[in-house]
Amino acid sequence: MIGRSGIAVRKVRRAEAAAVEQLGKFGVATIHEAMGRVGLLAPYMRPIYPGARLCGTAITALGHPGDNWMLHVAAEMLRPGDVVVMGFSSATEDGMFGDLLATSFRARGGVGLVIDAGVRDTAELAQMKFPVWSKTVNAKGTIKATVGSVNVPVVCAGALVHPGDVIVADDDGVVVVLAAKAAEVAAAAQEREDKEAATRARLKAGELGLDLYGMRDKLKAAGLKYYEDPEDAK
Amino acid sequence: MIGRSGIAVRKVRRAEAAAVEQLGKFGVATIHEAMGRVGLLAPYMRPIYPGARLCGTAITALGHPGDNWMLHVAAEMLRPGDVVVMGFSSATEDGMFGDLLATSFRARGGVGLVIDAGVRDTAELAQMKFPVWSKTVNAKGTIKATVGSVNVPVVCAGALVHPGDVIVADDDGVVVVLAAKAAEVAAAAQEREDKEAATRARLKAGELGLDLYGMRDKLKAAGLKYYEDPEDAK
Amino acid sequence: MIGRSGIAVRKVRRAEAAAVEQLGKFGVATIHEAMGRVGLLAPYMRPIYPGARLCGTAITALGHPGDNWMLHVAAEMLRPGDVVVMGFSSATEDGMFGDLLATSFRARGGVGLVIDAGVRDTAELAQMKFPVWSKTVNAKGTIKATVGSVNVPVVCAGALVHPGDVIVADDDGVVVVLAAKAAEVAAAAQEREDKEAATRARLKAGELGLDLYGMRDKLKAAGLKYYEDPEDAK
Amino acid sequence: MIGRSGIAVRKVRRAEAAAVEQLGKFGVATIHEAMGRVGLLAPYMRPIYPGARLCGTAITALGHPGDNWMLHVAAEMLRPGDVVVMGFSSATEDGMFGDLLATSFRARGGVGLVIDAGVRDTAELAQMKFPVWSKTVNAKGTIKATVGSVNVPVVCAGALVHPGDVIVADDDGVVVVLAAKAAEVAAAAQEREDKEAATRARLKAGELGLDLYGMRDKLKAAGLKYYEDPEDAK
Amino acid sequence: MIGRSGIAVRKVRRAEAAAVEQLGKFGVATIHEAMGRVGLLAPYMRPIYPGARLCGTAITALGHPGDNWMLHVAAEMLRPGDVVVMGFSSATEDGMFGDLLATSFRARGGVGLVIDAGVRDTAELAQMKFPVWSKTVNAKGTIKATVGSVNVPVVCAGALVHPGDVIVADDDGVVVVLAAKAAEVAAAAQEREDKEAATRARLKAGELGLDLYGMRDKLKAAGLKYYEDPEDAK
Amino acid sequence: MIGRSGIAVRKVRRAEAAAVEQLGKFGVATIHEAMGRVGLLAPYMRPIYPGARLCGTAITALGHPGDNWMLHVAAEMLRPGDVVVMGFSSATEDGMFGDLLATSFRARGGVGLVIDAGVRDTAELAQMKFPVWSKTVNAKGTIKATVGSVNVPVVCAGALVHPGDVIVADDDGVVVVLAAKAAEVAAAAQEREDKEAATRARLKAGELGLDLYGMRDKLKAAGLKYYEDPEDAK
Repeated sequence: MIGRSGIAVRKVRRAEAAAVEQLGKFGVATIHEAMGRVGLLAPYMRPIYPGARLCGTAITALGHPGDNWMLHVAAEMLRPGDVVVMGFSSATEDGMFGDLLATSFRARGGVGLVIDAGVRDTAELAQMKFPVWSKTVNAKGTIKATVGSVNVPVVCAGALVHPGDVIVADDDGVVVVLAAKAAEVAAAAQEREDKEAATRARLKAGELGLDLYGMRDKLKAAGLKYYEDPEDAK
Repeated sequence: MIGRSGIAVRKVRRAEAAAVEQLGKFGVATIHEAMGRVGLLAPYMRPIYPGARLCGTAITALGHPGDNWMLHVAAEMLRPGDVVVMGFSSATEDGMFGDLLATSFRARGGVGLVIDAGVRDTAELAQMKFPVWSKTVNAKGTIKATVGSVNVPVVCAGALVHPGDVIVADDDGVVVVLAAKAAEVAAAAQEREDKEAATRARLKAGELGLDLYGMRDKLKAAGLKYYEDPEDAK
Repeated sequence: MIGRSGIAVRKVRRAEAAAVEQLGKFGVATIHEAMGRVGLLAPYMRPIYPGARLCGTAITALGHPGDNWMLHVAAEMLRPGDVVVMGFSSATEDGMFGDLLATSFRARGGVGLVIDAGVRDTAELAQMKFPVWSKTVNAKGTIKATVGSVNVPVVCAGALVHPGDVIVADDDGVVVVLAAKAAEVAAAAQEREDKEAATRARLKAGELGLDLYGMRDKLKAAGLKYYEDPEDAK
Repeated sequence: MIGRSGIAVRKVRRAEAAAVEQLGKFGVATIHEAMGRVGLLAPYMRPIYPGARLCGTAITALGHPGDNWMLHVAAEMLRPGDVVVMGFSSATEDGMFGDLLATSFRARGGVGLVIDAGVRDTAELAQMKFPVWSKTVNAKGTIKATVGSVNVPVVCAGALVHPGDVIVADDDGVVVVLAAKAAEVAAAAQEREDKEAATRARLKAGELGLDLYGMRDKLKAAGLKYYEDPEDAK
Repeated sequence: MIGRSGIAVRKVRRAEAAAVEQLGKFGVATIHEAMGRVGLLAPYMRPIYPGARLCGTAITALGHPGDNWMLHVAAEMLRPGDVVVMGFSSATEDGMFGDLLATSFRARGGVGLVIDAGVRDTAELAQMKFPVWSKTVNAKGTIKATVGSVNVPVVCAGALVHPGDVIVADDDGVVVVLAAKAAEVAAAAQEREDKEAATRARLKAGELGLDLYGMRDKLKAAGLKYYEDPEDAK
Repeated sequence: MIGRSGIAVRKVRRAEAAAVEQLGKFGVATIHEAMGRVGLLAPYMRPIYPGARLCGTAITALGHPGDNWMLHVAAEMLRPGDVVVMGFSSATEDGMFGDLLATSFRARGGVGLVIDAGVRDTAELAQMKFPVWSKTVNAKGTIKATVGSVNVPVVCAGALVHPGDVIVADDDGVVVVLAAKAAEVAAAAQEREDKEAATRARLKAGELGLDLYGMRDKLKAAGLKYYEDPEDAK
C-alpha cells in the first residue's frame, strides 16, 4: 500500500497512551539509541524554532510535489495527541503548511507536524508554539489538484512511518517508534537514561571515558600508539 | 541592460510611499499569494536573526564573485526607506557585508540588505537590528577590483528585481513587488488577510477545511476513497 | 603525518597564553583579515546556538566516518583552555558528540569543540553553554571500532590545523591561527580594530566609503560610468 | 523489521520469473507511470556508465556508514537474476563496492547493484559491464566492523524495498515493483507502451499534443489567454 | 510580465537568422566572454549526453512544480530553429520532458530544450540526438493541472531569457544572447576567436602567458615575490 | 606557509621518477588502501571525461575566488611529468582553466590539472586528451587581479598537497602521495594488487568472501543471526 494514491483510512492502531507519555520524557538521541540506533529521519529535518519538542502518534499523509491537499484530509483524522507526518511522491520544497492549517490541527487535538517539504508563516507558528520539523522554510504556496493518501505507510525523509507509530522530535531531529514496540522502547530508554546519569556524575568528577568504559586495552589492540613527543611519531 | 557591468544610475523610479507602507503590514507569504504566487526569491535566502523583517524600495547592485565594491557605490544612492538588493555574475559565498557597511547604509537611510552571497559580523548586525537576508554566513573578506553596476535590473536568487521595486522580507523569505503594481498588490493582500481572519476563526472553532472550502465532492471526483479499516484498502 | 592513523601524541606546543587571551577579544572576521584573509574553515561549520563564542588552543583528532572513539583519547590530552578540533578521513554527518562527552571535556578544562561531522544533545549543550561548531546536527549515534589519531595535523572543513594552534570561533565561523604567529596576529587584529573604530564613527556621521577610502577615481579608471537616468544607459 | 540489525534471512519470496522478464522490456519511466507514478528511488541515484540497464529481483542489505560487511553476507544469498539493494542507517558516501565484489556477485548469478552510498573501481566495473546505481563515486575504502541485516525490508534512496521485489534501472533512474504486483504492472506497462507508439506516430507527423490530447478547452477553462502580440498582454 | 501565469503570446521577435547562424559557430565560453562575461545560466544545467550542442531562438515557458502542461502550449509556437527554454515558479526536479515531446518538438522544427527541472527517456533522447540541458535526470512523471505562460520573459537557472533571444549550449553550459545584440555579439566572438588562434600557436610553441600577456610587472606590483628555495620563503 | 599569498617558489623536491612511474600503474583506490585509507581528495572532484587518468608530481597553486592568475605563474614552473594542483582561499565554481592554458601546460611538459573550482572548454580538453579533475564545469570566465602563491603547501578539496607530491587520478577520484613515501607506497600497492589477483580468481570460481576471508565466526560473534524464513525473524 506504500505509495498508492487515492486512499484515506479512518481507523488507526495508535500506540498505547501510557507508552507515548513515557516516550515523551526522553530525547530523540536517547530513543534512537534505545532502539539499537535506528528509526531516525534524515538530519535535514529541522525544527522551525529552537527548543521545539513533540511526542505523539502519527497520522500519515502522502502528497505530490507542490500540492498540500492531503493535509486537509488528514485534519479530519486527528485525535488529541496526534502528529501529522507527510511524505511525498517526489522531492518538493514548497511551503505546504502555515498558520491557518496549524489553527485547524490544534483545534482537532493535533500537537505538531513533520513534513518532508517546506513550511511558511514560521513567525506565527513560533508564536503559537506549534512545533514543525521540515526540510526547509519557503513562502511558496501550493495547489490542491492531485489526490494522495492518508493513513497509509509513508516514507518521510528516508524513514518508514506507519499510522499510529510514535513520533518524537526535538532540536536533534525526529525519530519514529513502531506502535507495537512503544512500551519496550520506553523501558529501554529509561534504563539508558538511568545509566547515563551515573556516568555523567563520574565524568563530571574528572574520570576519563578511557577508564570508565575500559577502552585502553582495546585501543592498544586496535593499534593506537602513544608518543610523548611529535618528533617520535614521524 | 541585465547583467551589463560599468553602469551606475542615479535616478530610481521608486514605488509610491503609501503603497510601500501598506505592503509593510503583510507577511511575505500573503504578498506572494496576493500576486498570484510569484515574486519569491529562492528559499535559500535566510534572515541572519529570527524575527528579522523589512519593507523598502530597491537599490540594486550587480557584483562579481569575491568583490563587494559595488556596495560602496550603492551606499551613495540610498534614500530613507531603501533596501540594497545585490545579485552576482556567478555564484559566490564570500562575506560581502559587515557592520561597517551596515553603519554606512543606516546613516544614509538604508533599512536592510538582500544579497545572493555571504555576510559577516552577524552578531553585531543582530545587535544593531540591521536586517539582512543572505545565502550564507561567512567571515571570508572580499576585494574591490572589478566594476559591476548599480541600479540596473538584476537577478537575485532567481528573481528579477528592478530599481525602485518593493522588497518585503521576513522569516519566510523575500518577495519582490513591481513598483508599478505596489498599490494594487497591497489592496489584494489586504483583501486576502481579511478573508483569512474569518477563516481562522472558523478553523479555530473546529470546523474542517474539507467543509469550509467545499472540498469533499472534489476529492471524491479526483478519486479519493475512504476506508474505515486499513485491511479494506489492501 | 597528515592523515596517518594509530598515533596519539601527548606533547603539544601550545600558543602562548597571553597571545591566546588577546585573540579572544576579536571576532573571526577581524582575525582572518589581520592574517591576510586566510585561515577560515569552510562556512558550513555553524555554531549550535546563536551567540556561541570560543578562543582556545587546539587538541586535534582524526577520525573515521561513524566512529567517535578518538574523542575519548582526546579528552585525556585536554588542558584548561583547550579546544578539540576533529577532522575525518571521509565525509560523515553522524552525531559524534553529546552532553556526556561535553561534561567530560569541561571537567578536564576543555572549552569547546569544532567538528567536521554531526553533533547531538544540542538542547543540553546550549543549556550548558558548551560551544560547538559542526557540519550538522544529527541524533545518529556512532561506534568505537577504528583507531584514528590524536594531536597530529588534521584537515578540518578544508583548513589545516596543527596541535597547539589557536582556534577562534563565533557566529561568523571558525578561524585557525598558527601557534607561532599568535602574538603577531593579535597585534595586527588590534591595529585593524582601532582603525575600524575611527572609520565607523565617520560612516555613522554619513560620510561615504567612496570618499573615505578614495574610491571615486579608481572606479572611474576601472570603467564605471554614472548616468542620471536609466534611459541614458541603454 | 525495518531497520533492525543482526538479521540475515535466507528465504526470499521472489517475483515470478515471467513477470520479471516482461518488466525487463520497459524503461523506468514507463514502469513508474504504469504503477501510478510511484516506486522511484531518489534521482541522485545515477548509473556508473551511460547505457547501464538492469532488471532483477532484490536481495536487500542494511548497512552502517563506512561499513560494507553486509555485502559479503548478501553475496551468499544471490540466485541467478538477483540484484543487491543496499540502504544505510545513516547517510554515507564511502566506496562500498568494487571489482572484487562484482566478480563475486557475478559468479553467484548477481546481475547488478543499487546502493545508497559510493562505489569504486568504476572503470573496471564499466569494462565488466556490471551495472551499478549509486549516490556517488568514491575511492574511499570501508571497514567490516558492525553487523547490519540482509533480506529485511530496507529504505534505499527514499524508497521502500522488500526482498524479492523487482528492481528495474536505466539511465533515467531506479524503480521498485512489489513482487506481488509484478505481472499486473508488466501488463499495464505494455498497454502504456502500445498507446505511446500510436501517439508517437501522430506527433511525428506534426499533430500537436494540444489537439491529440484535447487540451485546448481545458487550458481555456484553466485561464490561459492567447495574445497575438506581447504588447497586448501587458 | 515576468512570472505572470495565464499568458500565451504567439508573436516572437526572433534574432536575425544570419546572426543566429554566426553564433552557432562559437562555444558558450567564447560567447559569454564576448559579451563581457554575462549571460550564463547556472552551471548546474548539464547536457544529457556528452557532445550535445545547440544554437537557436528561444520560445519561453513558465511552469509550476510537477506540471509540464506549458510544454504542449510551447510546441505549437515552434518555428524551425527554435529552442524551448522553461523556467518555474518554484524549484522542481520532476521529469518534465521525454521522447514523445521531443518527437513533437522536432516535427515542428524545434532543435532542443533548456529546462530548469528534470528530464527523462534520456537514452532515447541521446539516440535521437535531441539535445537537452537540465537540472537533473528523473523518471518522475508530471501532471497537467495548472496554467503557466508561454513567450513571456522567464528566469531560467538564474538568467533572464526573453522570447526570441539566442540560446547557445554545449558541454560547458548554456548562454543567452539578447535578440537585439546577436549580430554585435557574433562579431565580438569572431574577433576573440581570431585573437585566440594566434595566442594558441604561441603558447603551443612554449611561450609563457607571463610574457605573452605582459604579466611579470603587474605580478610584481601586486606583491608576488619569487624564491629559489622554499626555505627562503619561510 | 599554508595559505600565505604572494609567494612563488621555484625549487620543488619532486618524488623520485622511478616511484612515480610505479605508482602510475595502480588505480586510485588501490593506492589509497596501500597508504592505510588516507590521501583522497573529496569525492566531488570528478574527471571531465570518462577514462581520464594521470600520474605526476605536483606543482601547487593557491588562488582566490574568481581569479586564475596563479595558473600562469604555475605554467612557468612546470617540468615534464608535472601536474598542477590548485586550491583556493574560499569556495569558488568559476571556470578557471580552458584549452589555451592546457596548450601552454602541455607545451611545458604538464600532464594534467586538479582544481578545486570550475573548468571550461571541456569538449576541446577531451579532444586534446588533457585530463582535468574539477569541482564543476562552468563557462564563467575569471579575472587576474589578486596575487596568490605557487609551490606552497595547499589544501585542495580537503586534502593537503605539498609541491613535489605524487598525484594519481582516475575515474574513482584523486589521491595524493607524500613525495618521501612514494616508493614505499608503490611497493605496498604492488603487494596489494598481487594479493587481489589471487582473490579475484577464487571469487570468480564462486567461492564466497564469507569463507575466503574467514568472516563467518566474526559475524556470529558480532551478533548476526540467520533465519530460514522471514516469519522467524519477527
